[in-house]
Amino acid sequence: MPPVYDLTPGAFSFKPSPVNFNATHQVRNAMQKRLFGLIAAILLFAMTGIAAASDPLPSWNDGAAKAAITGFVARVTDQNSPDFVPVPERIATFDNDGTLWTEHPMYTQLAFAIDRVKALAPEHPEWKTTQPFQAVLENDFNALAASGEKGLLQLIMATHAGMSTDEFASIVSAWFDTAQHPKFKRPYTEMTFQPMLELLAYLRDNGFKTYITSGGGIEFMRPMTEQVYGIPPEQVIGSSIKTKFEMQDGKPVLMRLAEIDFIDDKTGKPVGINKFIGRRPIASFGNSDGDRQMLEWTAAGDGARLMMLVQHDDAEREYAYGPANGLPDTHFGAFTPALMEEAKGSGWVVISMKDDWKQIFAPAK
Amino acid sequence: MPPVYDLTPGAFSFKPSPVNFNATHQVRNAMQKRLFGLIAAILLFAMTGIAAASDPLPSWNDGAAKAAITGFVARVTDQNSPDFVPVPERIATFDNDGTLWTEHPMYTQLAFAIDRVKALAPEHPEWKTTQPFQAVLENDFNALAASGEKGLLQLIMATHAGMSTDEFASIVSAWFDTAQHPKFKRPYTEMTFQPMLELLAYLRDNGFKTYITSGGGIEFMRPMTEQVYGIPPEQVIGSSIKTKFEMQDGKPVLMRLAEIDFIDDKTGKPVGINKFIGRRPIASFGNSDGDRQMLEWTAAGDGARLMMLVQHDDAEREYAYGPANGLPDTHFGAFTPALMEEAKGSGWVVISMKDDWKQIFAPAK
Repeated sequence: MPPVYDLTPGAFSFKPSPVNFNATHQVRNAMQKRLFGLIAAILLFAMTGIAAASDPLPSWNDGAAKAAITGFVARVTDQNSPDFVPVPERIATFDNDGTLWTEHPMYTQLAFAIDRVKALAPEHPEWKTTQPFQAVLENDFNALAASGEKGLLQLIMATHAGMSTDEFASIVSAWFDTAQHPKFKRPYTEMTFQPMLELLAYLRDNGFKTYITSGGGIEFMRPMTEQVYGIPPEQVIGSSIKTKFEMQDGKPVLMRLAEIDFIDDKTGKPVGINKFIGRRPIASFGNSDGDRQMLEWTAAGDGARLMMLVQHDDAEREYAYGPANGLPDTHFGAFTPALMEEAKGSGWVVISMKDDWKQIFAPAK
Repeated sequence: MPPVYDLTPGAFSFKPSPVNFNATHQVRNAMQKRLFGLIAAILLFAMTGIAAASDPLPSWNDGAAKAAITGFVARVTDQNSPDFVPVPERIATFDNDGTLWTEHPMYTQLAFAIDRVKALAPEHPEWKTTQPFQAVLENDFNALAASGEKGLLQLIMATHAGMSTDEFASIVSAWFDTAQHPKFKRPYTEMTFQPMLELLAYLRDNGFKTYITSGGGIEFMRPMTEQVYGIPPEQVIGSSIKTKFEMQDGKPVLMRLAEIDFIDDKTGKPVGINKFIGRRPIASFGNSDGDRQMLEWTAAGDGARLMMLVQHDDAEREYAYGPANGLPDTHFGAFTPALMEEAKGSGWVVISMKDDWKQIFAPAK
């Protein structure tokens, strides 16, 4: 427990009045106001110092993963360390699905697309007899899986295109306000991993700029990332469809087209990082084969680097899947033995949800 | 002239020692160190206050343009104003060529491409008899102009693709280190407009995030924007060619392909802004028809907005071209009468380089 300080303002015998200015009374009053503001700043500063002295990662068990994080941050932020990195270059990139929030029983965006197909079905009677829509309407997930990548793309285009960017953002926000995770019966925006939220905040407190680099849709994530992760829209990178500038009734809109613009997955992740950020991250975090090239790209830079992979090995508190380490092979977020081998050979750190995390989900809001 | 303050440290009778902590000596010493640090902060803060009281835009003549800027900034930063905008939403976007630096006698990037064609010519004997390369090697700018957009694209692809992103950044940096503007005989990185540099700094001092949104190549600009404009690579949006992730000798590289990825001009500017930033700017700055849709997109948002266009009407100190207002119609950066009419009808502010700017170029470094 940290020592107790008396931090009430009266405990400071700090008097701004004796400051000597060769200036008018008006200016002196303005300067005094500024000094009073600084008393508040001093208190805040002192308290921040105390908070920093306590554990910044309370949901992490002591172990190799936690030590890798705190050791890395200590090295790159210490001006006397050979590994010191200036603040503007402290870029950290995070996959979203399976890394920052849960991705089972299916990607959250797929749950959204399914709900949208059901909501839009009355306007599309032909969907009753057309795959993959029929599969969705009949809750036939085997038929849906059989429709493959092409089928998923059809679902996405039918539900994510044909409206303006503003309209789509409203639809997404409204969905997040009401939709619930089928197993945990909580809003999807609460299916975030508490240890990763602490990690994001810890890195930002140490001068890092935190980015999301997800295979998911950039405009599906942006309406919630600021509130959920403290990550502003301009630090979200994802897959996208094309948009087109149009004038509608004298007002400009960006219409969403049923045409792929960019797939931010696998080899696309370094491409997206280079395109959006223009600098190489010094730390990156993922959980599946889709993150491999992002970690390789991060690792290939000069100086200290941190690459980490979340392994879902906690069937009790969340889900367990691999197929690495003999865990079940499932549809979403494959962590293959080949990725595990590369991680071990390259000094990437594997986080065991079961062993490294005291708590999985963020508390209810 | 501002009043003179005595700002030497001794002028403050600020003593940290009487602070009362219910804590150990060690902790007290740590707290005292923190307080001493804050004395320095107070001095800095006081001096910043003084600096802010002086003119933040000294290279701007008093007039409608300068008043539009300072009035807008006052409204959106005053918490008691109905036009107040929270810091994260203070996004300002700037065209580059002709808005932040000179674009005549040709776009800087075209000068780079021409120099690269000449440098690479020994490896390409066929260029001696193939347009548009022959035109470049023979300095025949009429033939080059006749090759049109297709010819320019060929030049760009021959000089901007086929190497890794790291290699291209090195080539660009080396070129900027030595190349000179043909008329002013100064490095291109000094062909920036001093009033616009002051505007960028003024906006950032008031909590704005400043972005470049240029039709020029994103990877051509990024090697110099931080040093030249104080704009980091992640706040540069521009046109791009595709890149491809590859492993070369076990090391990942991003190879630049001879294939257009995105054209950040005209209707592409709002598309790029939405893609990279995900928020609508509240202020935007351009100088030509290529910026029209960016200004329309900015203007269409709710709340206070500032849209400005630089008019090049100073043949003596820089260049004069339109064709708006009867100025010469040239190859680069057309400001058409239609744009002028829209600006007047929409309350966009036109900056006259001749009348509004005391000084055009940044001083030599």
